[in-house]
Order: sequence, then structure tokens, then C-alpha cells
Amino acid sequence: MRSTTARGFAPTIACISTAFWSHVWRPGMAGAAQSTRGSSAMTIGGIEAGGTHWTCAVGDGGKELERIESFPAGSPTKTIARAIEFFREVPDLKALGVGCFGPVDLRRSSPAWGTITTTPKPGWAQTDLVSTLDGALSVPIAFDTDVNAAAIGERRWGAARGLETFAYVTVGTGIGCGIIANGRPVHGLMHPEFGHVRVPHGFARDPFPGACPYHGDCLEGLASGRALEERWGSPGEKLSAPEVWELEAEYIALGLASIVLVLSPERIILGGGVSRATGLISRVRMRLCDLMGGYIELPQFQVGIDDYLVPPGLGARAGVHGAIELARLIT
Amino acid sequence: MRSTTARGFAPTIACISTAFWSHVWRPGMAGAAQSTRGSSAMTIGGIEAGGTHWTCAVGDGGKELERIESFPAGSPTKTIARAIEFFREVPDLKALGVGCFGPVDLRRSSPAWGTITTTPKPGWAQTDLVSTLDGALSVPIAFDTDVNAAAIGERRWGAARGLETFAYVTVGTGIGCGIIANGRPVHGLMHPEFGHVRVPHGFARDPFPGACPYHGDCLEGLASGRALEERWGSPGEKLSAPEVWELEAEYIALGLASIVLVLSPERIILGGGVSRATGLISRVRMRLCDLMGGYIELPQFQVGIDDYLVPPGLGARAGVHGAIELARLIT
Repeated sequence: MRSTTARGFAPTIACISTAFWSHVWRPGMAGAAQSTRGSSAMTIGGIEAGGTHWTCAVGDGGKELERIESFPAGSPTKTIARAIEFFREVPDLKALGVGCFGPVDLRRSSPAWGTITTTPKPGWAQTDLVSTLDGALSVPIAFDTDVNAAAIGERRWGAARGLETFAYVTVGTGIGCGIIANGRPVHGLMHPEFGHVRVPHGFARDPFPGACPYHGDCLEGLASGRALEERWGSPGEKLSAPEVWELEAEYIALGLASIVLVLSPERIILGGGVSRATGLISRVRMRLCDLMGGYIELPQFQVGIDDYLVPPGLGARAGVHGAIELARLIT
Repeated sequence: MRSTTARGFAPTIACISTAFWSHVWRPGMAGAAQSTRGSSAMTIGGIEAGGTHWTCAVGDGGKELERIESFPAGSPTKTIARAIEFFREVPDLKALGVGCFGPVDLRRSSPAWGTITTTPKPGWAQTDLVSTLDGALSVPIAFDTDVNAAAIGERRWGAARGLETFAYVTVGTGIGCGIIANGRPVHGLMHPEFGHVRVPHGFARDPFPGACPYHGDCLEGLASGRALEERWGSPGEKLSAPEVWELEAEYIALGLASIVLVLSPERIILGGGVSRATGLISRVRMRLCDLMGGYIELPQFQVGIDDYLVPPGLGARAGVHGAIELARLIT
């Protein structure tokens, strides 16, 4: 059922379409595959379903948003109901894209596709998000991780335009990354879980045991917003001592070095609330150059670092823009 | 993911061709684009140009090889001359694929495309391998890293058949990985340099400072064949004490965990001379399960680990098979 539309495009488009067609459609939605790709003034919705906040927005597939609303993520029932209420008020909604915090089931052939799986977030494990939205709104739904959605948004409108292989990293309450490789979001076995990568800790310098309930001192355990607050006794926005941000930059740079060395991205976008701390990205850039310099002799790790490790071009709206773009690709 | 099969073969070929056309052709070779793709009994050559040994082979694009020869990598002049001599004796050679140790320049638009760049291997830095082969043999040449070639070989004939996103890791004299993501080899900014990823060292357990001339105790500095020999005073094949291989498995598993968490591969193939040590892969599997277990609740990190982390299906010939496959894709 997914082949008819995709075959109409040139090979490159076919590649992109294949990726999206294979991940986004729910059973029974085949009829919508005949809809209005490329038509103007179509109404498309997007949800950035984050662990702490959700953002819902509506647009026409262009860069401007017509409506946008953010609210805290409470219980699954209340939070999803609020999103449904937002979109029920939108006349003639054609499709909905969802970028969701994880872990999620992205396997299109799985009965649990569209479900939030083993999250430790209280009450949210095994939440079948897409089925609930589908039952209430009856529109085609595209689904991916929140960080893949942000990466897709940045590729369409932000700091990753024209790139084929790059990473969108978020450092906030948690740590994660979305990967675009060879022009398409990477799912692989499940989806990346970058936050849990192990990095050298250095107990002598940093005796904090780490905040991750699974691994203690993985990257997220050492450098997430949660870790900052546990280690220093105050949330990140109230911390200004240089040693706080020097250590934070060290861990983030070590994590980013793993991405550089495993994936060789053309650029890394660093988003999330913690990453916006004054001066942090500059410190991370310097440390990443130190870690790469000498071995990888590319300008990106010398004079070009400011253009290699960058903040999101869409700021905090990358995720919801990407969710709309996910939906646009299935219309 | 697998929807391309259901749709028939043509779009998949179109995707792969797009990728290869953008990376493999040398200027002036455009005429050959009209050649004999799909014809039978074509003679194709492949070189696995490793840091310590080269393997040259000829086949018809099928799984069997007609001729194969391995020899140590000496000086660039002598080594390349020996490869040229091998292929000059092959009648009607149609194309040549090269999988080369790195770092190499894979940017098809670069004047240095096909060159070995900043390698510390004495005499080999800035060796323009493809130009030299092209000048002597005058056939279309495809070029990639040795590990990407091995990954391509494994995808065609070996342990990665049917997979879209996976990693081929080699642990030998050095450590590296080839990545296939969304069905195509990853180059990105340059190409992955996985060997230099940082992992927790644990000086108390392992006071060895590491053997990497750039980073000391990066993964390659701690777990390569060179590191084994420097730490324990004997080459890997003469070491049998359990603590040697327990520590080795620990570092390899930490490195593989970085790949799992950054890329989410569907499978990891573990090749290279060190990885063939008796019992090592079993130890690595157990440790990788420990590192993932609890957080990523997939059978691949429990009962399915033996099918997730596997030796190469083509053994030590993965690279040269992949080099021939690289060449087949441009004929």
C-alpha cells in the first residue's frame, strides 16, 4: 500500500519517501496516501512530546506556525487529552506528526508501534500514544523520537540544511540524540540512546557517583540537568561557578567525541535547556577540539569549530517544527 | 525498514546507485557509466589495503573468488607495485574496488580523493593510492575504507545480509569500524574513527597508560593488538591468562556499547585478528549484555546476544569481498 505514491518520484525522493513510508503509517490509513502532497495551505499538526513539557503546533508545512501551545507533561491521560483538545479545535487537520520522548517503539511492523515503552517516568511506561491520538483525531500520524524530530526540523529549516549525516544532541533534564545518516533518520534496532554512553569519569576530580538509576555514571548520570542538581545542590540555572561548567563541558565534549568517532557527522547541533547556559557551548567547543585535535586534522576541529558545533537554528521549536515536517512527508 | 523488498527491487538499486555514484567516480570516467551492469562473467578486482597486509583478488561479482593473493604492506611504492602487477596479469579487468586503511580522503569532490592522509604508518602519509592505480591500470576505481568495504562484503555475502543499519568492527593491530546506515556506508565529515573513542579506563585495575600516540588510553590505546603487546609484554596470540582476556573484553564491550547507544545498529560484526582469540567474543557478549541490560530491554541483549554480536560470515576475506562488491556497483 505504501509503494504507489513513492514510486511516482525520482530516485532520491524515493529514498526519502521509503524511509518515511515504512515508519509512519498505521493500518487502515491507506486511503490517505492518495492525498495532497505538495498542495499549499494544508493544515498539519505537530506534537513535541517531551518528558517534562509538550508543545503542540499547527502550520501549513512552511516555516511559520499558525498556532502553538506548550504545557507541562502531567499524567498520560491528562496530557494526551490536552493535546487532543488542541487539535480538535483545528479545522480540516490533514495529518499529525509526533516526536516523542523515549524509549519508544518505532518498528512499523510491531503491534506496539507508537508506544512509549520502558520509560522510568512515573505512569508513562507502555503508553500507546499513537493509538490514543488516532482514535480521537482520525488523521494519518507520523511518529519518531523527539530528538529525531528535532533533527528533521533542523534539516528542513534550521542549522542542518543541506546536510546528509549529522546529529542533534539535547542536554536537558536528560540527554539524547537524533541521528540523520545518509539523509534519513536512524532507527536501527530501536533508536539511539546516546545519553547512556559511558565516558571517563575521573572520580578523583569528581567524586559524584552519578544520577542515572540504571548506570550511575553514564553521560546522562554525570551531565544531565538532573545530575547537575544532584551534584551541586541547585538547579543548573542557579549555578555560576566556573568549575561547575568546566566539568559539565568536559563530560559533554567526551560524549560528543563518541558521536564524532562512531558516526563522523558533518555537524553537531547542541540543544536542550542545559546547553543554553552562558558560555557552555564555547567551553564544549574548546574541549572537543582538544579531544580531536592532532589526530583528526580537519578545520572543523580547529578554526571551524564554531560552525561545526552549533546551537539549534530553530531554538526550542526544533522538535515541533520537525514533528510537522514528519507529518508533511506523509501527506 | 524492509518495505523496499515488498516494493520490488528497482527503488533500492536506485538508492544504492545514488550513494555510490557520488563517491566512487574519478574525473574522466563518466563514459564507463554506460557499461555492463548486470552482465555475467565480468572480471572485477578488489584490494583490501590493510595497514599490515594487503589482499588482492579477482572474481565475477559472485561469491567465489577466481584468484587471491595476500602480502605484507611494505613501503607504499613496493606494495602498490605488487598490487598493480597482480592485476596486470588479469585479462579484461573491468573495474577495481579498494578498501583502504585510514585516515583516507573519501570526499568525491576533493582533489585528494583516494589518498591516504595523516596516517602515522611510516612513509604512507599523503599516499595518492587511487591515482597511482588508475595511472597503471586505467579501469574505473571505487574507493572506501577497509572497514566499510568489509561491512559491504558482509552485507552482500556474510553476516549482515538483509540489514539496513549495522557496524563492522575490527580489533587487530588497530581498532576501527565501518558503518552502514539506512542501507549505505557512512562517510559523513570524513569517516568514522571509532578506535579513538574514549572509554572508562580504571587506572586502579589497569595502570597501563595506553598505547595510542595521540590519546594514550583511548579504546585503541587500551585494547588493540599493539596495546595488548605493550601491556603484557607478549603478542596476543601468546597470552592465555584469564585476566588478560577479561580486561580485553571489558574494553571492547565498552567501545561496542558506544556504537549501540549512538547508532542503534541491528547487528555488530566483530572481526580482526585479536577478536579471534579463543573465548573472547563470548566474554564480550556477556559484558555487553551487562552494560545494556536493564535499560534496553531487547532480546538482543539477553538471550539473542549470540545473534547480535557475531564474527564475520566471510572470515578474513570480508574486506576483499567488499572491495569487489564496491567495484561491481560501479560497473
